[in-house]
Amino acid sequence: MTKSQTTNATRITDIRITPVAFHDPPLLNSVGVHQPFAIRSIIEVGTSDGVTGLGESYGDAGHLARLRLVGDALVGLDVFATNEMLKRTVEVLHGAVGADRHGLTGQISERGTVLRTFATYEVAALDIQGKLLGRPVSDLLGGAVRTSVPYSAYLFYKWAAHPGERPDRYGEALDADAIVLQARTMISEYGFRAIKLKGGVLIAEEEIAAIEALRDAFPDVPLRLDPNTAWSVATSIKVGRELDGVLEYLEDPTPGLDGMAEVARDVSMPLATNMCVVGFEDIAPAIEKKSVQVILSDHHYWGGLTKVKGLSEICDTFDLGLSMHSNSHLGISLAAMTHVAAAVPNLTYALDTHWPWKFEDVIVDGALDFVDGAIAVPSAPGLGVELDHDALAHLHAQYVACGITERSDTSYMQSFHPDYRAELPRW
Amino acid sequence: MTKSQTTNATRITDIRITPVAFHDPPLLNSVGVHQPFAIRSIIEVGTSDGVTGLGESYGDAGHLARLRLVGDALVGLDVFATNEMLKRTVEVLHGAVGADRHGLTGQISERGTVLRTFATYEVAALDIQGKLLGRPVSDLLGGAVRTSVPYSAYLFYKWAAHPGERPDRYGEALDADAIVLQARTMISEYGFRAIKLKGGVLIAEEEIAAIEALRDAFPDVPLRLDPNTAWSVATSIKVGRELDGVLEYLEDPTPGLDGMAEVARDVSMPLATNMCVVGFEDIAPAIEKKSVQVILSDHHYWGGLTKVKGLSEICDTFDLGLSMHSNSHLGISLAAMTHVAAAVPNLTYALDTHWPWKFEDVIVDGALDFVDGAIAVPSAPGLGVELDHDALAHLHAQYVACGITERSDTSYMQSFHPDYRAELPRW
Repeated sequence: MTKSQTTNATRITDIRITPVAFHDPPLLNSVGVHQPFAIRSIIEVGTSDGVTGLGESYGDAGHLARLRLVGDALVGLDVFATNEMLKRTVEVLHGAVGADRHGLTGQISERGTVLRTFATYEVAALDIQGKLLGRPVSDLLGGAVRTSVPYSAYLFYKWAAHPGERPDRYGEALDADAIVLQARTMISEYGFRAIKLKGGVLIAEEEIAAIEALRDAFPDVPLRLDPNTAWSVATSIKVGRELDGVLEYLEDPTPGLDGMAEVARDVSMPLATNMCVVGFEDIAPAIEKKSVQVILSDHHYWGGLTKVKGLSEICDTFDLGLSMHSNSHLGISLAAMTHVAAAVPNLTYALDTHWPWKFEDVIVDGALDFVDGAIAVPSAPGLGVELDHDALAHLHAQYVACGITERSDTSYMQSFHPDYRAELPRW
Repeated sequence: MTKSQTTNATRITDIRITPVAFHDPPLLNSVGVHQPFAIRSIIEVGTSDGVTGLGESYGDAGHLARLRLVGDALVGLDVFATNEMLKRTVEVLHGAVGADRHGLTGQISERGTVLRTFATYEVAALDIQGKLLGRPVSDLLGGAVRTSVPYSAYLFYKWAAHPGERPDRYGEALDADAIVLQARTMISEYGFRAIKLKGGVLIAEEEIAAIEALRDAFPDVPLRLDPNTAWSVATSIKVGRELDGVLEYLEDPTPGLDGMAEVARDVSMPLATNMCVVGFEDIAPAIEKKSVQVILSDHHYWGGLTKVKGLSEICDTFDLGLSMHSNSHLGISLAAMTHVAAAVPNLTYALDTHWPWKFEDVIVDGALDFVDGAIAVPSAPGLGVELDHDALAHLHAQYVACGITERSDTSYMQSFHPDYRAELPRW
């Protein structure tokens, strides 16, 4: 008899996985442009005590199939048995390597596939635990060490609209002036106190100019630039030197641990990554090569909130900075990110979020509001967010109608520019 | 307002610290011999909800003073706010470096002093959390992945009795035959399926002979030898080669990361340590130098059960083995060790414990019983052990009467052998 079979257990009785789609603007990056809809999976985990836990993850078809497979194997388990959940996930997915490339998160391994599947359920389990205990999830992670969690303004080069549609409220942004305007709009609305520019879209000189314009416009705001490995080592070093003293960190300028290490030796600012260190197995070589100075964690693929706590212990031990990566996401993910960031003492950078780029959600309004660019850590039990079932149904209908079952920024770009190639590094 | 000040908090209202002493046999090691009493501190943490949490730690005067200082600073905190507890501990102990050398646990740093003080309260906080939730502590750590936790038979060279007293039930053990007899006695009583011999007492040839005798007597039982850095690098390599294929691991043969690395290069078995890697700050250099292959964790000085979970993530990430060190301890510590070991998937070695060497305790009998050398993970809420207040009073009276306020194996040895010197390495 394992612990999960004691009589006072709260058992998982059923799992509902609902793919959803929400409108996404034509945001540009180094491999193409965001499709008209971003897809996500919304997970509801029912229990023998009638408490339901929520999770949110990627919406790609392969990932959905793995979530279903694993979900079936978790029925009957105690909601506190997260170690056992991970073990079952490993067993069920044995040999599976998800080809999901959502969010440019680097190499895909069996371990990574396991952790991104497990993570979804770990969050839902913590949501249930918190609800059973009448405690916010942050309390299950050692308690919040900050009352609110700061996020950064995540700027993108973008088209005014998806071809054939009306311009969105942010409009076109294809040069430095437009990027500064985008920053002003976003900051006036959300109060962000850090700025990240997604680069790798224009030639490096243009992106340097945009960062310099941002520095002039917001002299006291920390700035970051993320070209998603669009640059060679030489270009990366050139950019890093030109932006000496301007960037808080430079994110994934070039592919691979060796290339990053070369760049790190020759630039002054820390290098951050969510592409060359995306799993625990990448850490030892990254440390040995001195490839990166900041790891951009993401509970969706690092294996859940507790694993991010483990990662934070590693970062603390090896003098690595810790910040947080974002994909296009909804409110359940934002709540989870906020709880873990609140409870990790050394997660000291403002987190990334795509939040301002969407206007729809599956959660009831009001749980997560930005004040001065930060979200107050929810104090309600669990994640502190509630599912809006009508909204969920609507976004599911949208998923069915839009027909997108895999994210592909590249093929969407190619539908307008057939010669486009996602070759990295590009410059 | 921090999370710990929400209205649904269960607050720490009072902390009681009771030093206790229990009879300890004259066990020999590389720096002397155990005194007639081992001293410990028993911590009771009271809360606004009337639930009490238990902790157990070292009993040395300096440590007791630090526990009191920190305990005062924790009153008013929510029992889930362990991150905040650590922060306060850091603040209160700023600049303090405990000179406690209890258990040969290596260098003493400010960080180590903080973590060994905090750990005591973290365990008590988890005990309270579990009681509030009606869950065993292992559930708060991701759930037990094993139903029982195996311990090893911890053999010692020893005198028959403290001078002037009657022989204890184990009698004298100063050669291989006596060690084998001691192992038979202990295994017949507890069912242990792994054996550790505390070495560093006799010349290496004698200890090699003892291990070989144990191998002959128990051909299927994993064996370990721990001379507590009594040997030079050359002696360590000589012993390692002679015991090639016989030892599961060789523990702390020689002092320091560099010496251990030299030995590791020349022997076949893994090297384990609780002396050269005793805190997170030791890990990076140990990995770089390849000094050790197994870390012997100990929640008492690694900073509590959650920190041991973090350490386990590090060990998993860097392909290090993980086992557990023991000092002379009572039942609260044994319960805590059992819970964390149950919930750490990669803590796969049988744990060390001094348990068979004592006949007294502060907990109510029956919660922790050995079957086949293992303890069933308690399923009662919290740690699953209950304080016996009469026994506590008795062991406290014993503490007062015995007059021991610092552990000093060396000066106790010198009281019989004035020329004795604790110089390591000795051979």
